[in-house]
Parts: sequence; C-alpha cells; structure tokens
Amino acid sequence: MPLTCIEVPGIPLIQPGDDLAAIVAEAITRVGEHLREGDVVVVAQKVVSKAEGRIVDLRTVSPGPDARVLARESEKDPRLVELILRESNEVLRVRPGLIIVEHRHGFVCANAGIDHSNVLGDEEHVLLLPAHPDRSALELRRRWQEIFAIDNLAVIINDSHGRAWRLGTVGVAIGLAGMHPLTDRRGDPDLMGRTLQVTVIGTADELAAAASVVMGQADEGIPVVIIREARYQPGEGSLKDLLRPRAQDLFR
Amino acid sequence: MPLTCIEVPGIPLIQPGDDLAAIVAEAITRVGEHLREGDVVVVAQKVVSKAEGRIVDLRTVSPGPDARVLARESEKDPRLVELILRESNEVLRVRPGLIIVEHRHGFVCANAGIDHSNVLGDEEHVLLLPAHPDRSALELRRRWQEIFAIDNLAVIINDSHGRAWRLGTVGVAIGLAGMHPLTDRRGDPDLMGRTLQVTVIGTADELAAAASVVMGQADEGIPVVIIREARYQPGEGSLKDLLRPRAQDLFR
Repeated sequence: MPLTCIEVPGIPLIQPGDDLAAIVAEAITRVGEHLREGDVVVVAQKVVSKAEGRIVDLRTVSPGPDARVLARESEKDPRLVELILRESNEVLRVRPGLIIVEHRHGFVCANAGIDHSNVLGDEEHVLLLPAHPDRSALELRRRWQEIFAIDNLAVIINDSHGRAWRLGTVGVAIGLAGMHPLTDRRGDPDLMGRTLQVTVIGTADELAAAASVVMGQADEGIPVVIIREARYQPGEGSLKDLLRPRAQDLFR
Repeated sequence: MPLTCIEVPGIPLIQPGDDLAAIVAEAITRVGEHLREGDVVVVAQKVVSKAEGRIVDLRTVSPGPDARVLARESEKDPRLVELILRESNEVLRVRPGLIIVEHRHGFVCANAGIDHSNVLGDEEHVLLLPAHPDRSALELRRRWQEIFAIDNLAVIINDSHGRAWRLGTVGVAIGLAGMHPLTDRRGDPDLMGRTLQVTVIGTADELAAAASVVMGQADEGIPVVIIREARYQPGEGSLKDLLRPRAQDLFR
C-alpha cells in the first residue's frame, strides 16, 4: 500500500478550552474515516496552542529593558519582544523583522514561534507555542487511541520553520508521541547500492513536512492530516531526540 | 483524493551510461502504473549520478596542498578532500569526519554531497552529485512526458541533508523541473484563522522529504517515488529559487 496523507476536513475554528481530541475525532468520523493501527496523525501547532489557550493579550505585557533594546534593533513591538525573550533560552541573531532564538523547548526558530497574524481578529493578541508539546502529543494520542480503540498511534505536532541557507518554510516536528523520531539506518544495507548505510533519518521531520504539503495546499484550513502506511519506529520518543546537542553545533 | 506517495519497485542497480528515464518508465509500466498529469516524480540523487557516470576512481586524484591541510584537519582521505574542494565554492566548517561546504550548485551540505559508501563494491570509488541537477531533472521530465504522453509533470531530484540544529537527515530538492519550488502564500487567507498569510512554503523540499520517507523505509532500494495529488505551482522553476541569497544569510 502506498503512503497516503489524508486530510481531515471540516474542523471548525478552534477556541481556547476546546476539546481538540474530541473535535478532531468527530471530524474524522463524519467523513466515514477512522484511525487505524500504525497511523501517524500530524496536528498543526496552531490549533493545539489555541485549544490550550496560549493566547496572550499584548496589552497585559510590560516590556523590560532587554526587550526594549531588542525591539529597537529588530523593529518589533517591544511587548512582543518581551514574550519572545520569555519563551527563549538564547537569542542567536537579530535583524529588522527577525529574531532567531533557541526556544525554551530547545529548537532554533524565528521569533520564538509566536504567531502575530491577527489571532483573534485584532492586532493585540498573539499565540505562543504549546507549553509542553510532547505532553500535548501524548495526551492527544491517549485520547485517540481510546476513542478509536487502537494501541499503536503516533502523533506529531508540526510547525513551519525557515532554514539557515534555503528559502521557504518546511514542516518540522515540535512535539511527538508514540514514535522514535529518528530512524537509525547505520549498519543496514544501503538503499541503492546494497552497501552499508551511515545515515540517521529524521523521520518525524519528514512526516511533518509531508503533512505540511497537504495542510498548505488547501484553501480552507486543514490543521490535521492522517499519514497511513508510513513505516516508523514505534516507541516513547520525544522532541529532545531531534535536537542537536550544543557540543555538536557548528553554527551558533 | 488524498496525496499519495507511490513507490516504484523493481528498478535494477543503475550503472554508468544506463538510460535512467527508460529504465524507470519500464519499471512503472511493469507494475501496471503510468504517470499522469500533475504527478511529481522524485528521483534519488544517487541513481541520477550513477547513470551520468559521476563515479571517480580516487587513485586518479592528486590532492593539492589545500586538500592535504584540510585532510589532516578533517581526518579524511586527502584525495576525497581534493574532490570535495573541486566540487565546492567555499568551506564553511571543518570537524573530524565532516567538511561543511557551499557546493558549486549553491546549497550548503556536508562533504560536497560526495558518497564514499562502497559505490562500486570497493573503497576506491566515490560518487559525485549530478553535474547539472536542474538539467538532469529537465531531461527526465522531457523523456517521461514523451513516453507517457502527458504535458504537466514535475521532477525533483532529492538528496538527504543534515541540518544545523536538528538531528537526522531530511530529503531536500537538489534539482527540479516543471514546478516553482516555492509556494508564495503571502496575501492568501490564513490556513487556520482565515487571516492573512506571511509565509513562503518550500514545497519542493517538503515533497522531497515526503518521498524520502518512502525511499528510506524500504528494505530494498526505492530510488523513485511518484507523488500524486500534490498541489504545486507548475512552471519553469530551478534549484536556484530555493537558495537563500548570501546577503540574507545570518549563519555563515
């Protein structure tokens, strides 16, 4: 069977406090579909964050001195910069319109992944990333396994990240459950030459990117994609497995 | 229809001089499949390079002084390092076992993408990237459009690249034809919030990653994957469209 990326249509705009697991399960059932053993469900960060109420009213944020300095350098709203700093371990680069940080979750991304695009229909609310993305993925997994009476589901929360040397964003995993995000092929026969592999594949990120093609191509929002027939290593993986240790980082 | 990644089984080990387009077309036909309008065919770099005879016998390579210095620093074979330098515009970072360069084709990658994994069953032959990957993609496209009597095919040549801050390789496009690799959503309604997008999506790289999941999950080699029902912008795109201009590069 070929690998398929099935969009889940009809998911309404998510509001803070919504039961995302139930809403998605209902949308899946409504189109006559159900989750199966081995499926990977990829969920856009935005709907997880919204359901978890990660919306901040900028009018409640008082920028500190560091945020004020950085706001001038980046030409950004000082209140937004204050939030970026609170969400980050370290600022890596600053340019007008762009602050590249190591997020508290450990990955490098622009503007701490904070979405400032008219979240509640005004310019005064922004959306932070989920507080504990692995935990969010684990809870969605638990609920969906229960609802669909299955034992082997993987869940990935994805977001779109820019890259250092390439243009265009790609989907990456920012939280996951039920899988090892890396596939270690070292020692396996080589794919094309029948020789030995030296590769560790970023499978969760590749699945996050595949889902992102489907999410990005719809005119209406498709925040959830079911990937069927993907081979991956089931298990208790974490976002942490995907993060390059600081000691191996050549580009900071 | 869901997005589907269809593997093309039964492609034999490719040899220098092989007619790759014909071999792949035959393999597609043999399983009762055919290419359709709008399909994206993703081809692993390795088989394109092999068909184009990009194999080098290290015994024919004389390392120059720069290669000898860099070989000590990287603990690599000086002859291999000589090839890495010839294939590159610039060396970015060096560590034992690793030379990160800007390839002549313009992208940043490890060891100039040269494959040293027992290419001809010995340690003395290595495989360079295709000399002109966009041109290779264009020629495959022309041939397949002719063979299958279609007008709208996209072809991506993919390779697996590491990332600066994340572990695991992901499939990326190193050559393409028949599509614009970026999807510009700026000004479009937002996917989840019905507001305005500020995103340019790296669609060709996301498709390259999706195909890589299928290529990587087979025990035998699957060097060609057909992606069906992906929406992308047809047109005369190039790898160049995916490369971040030097002036915007914050991490060199």
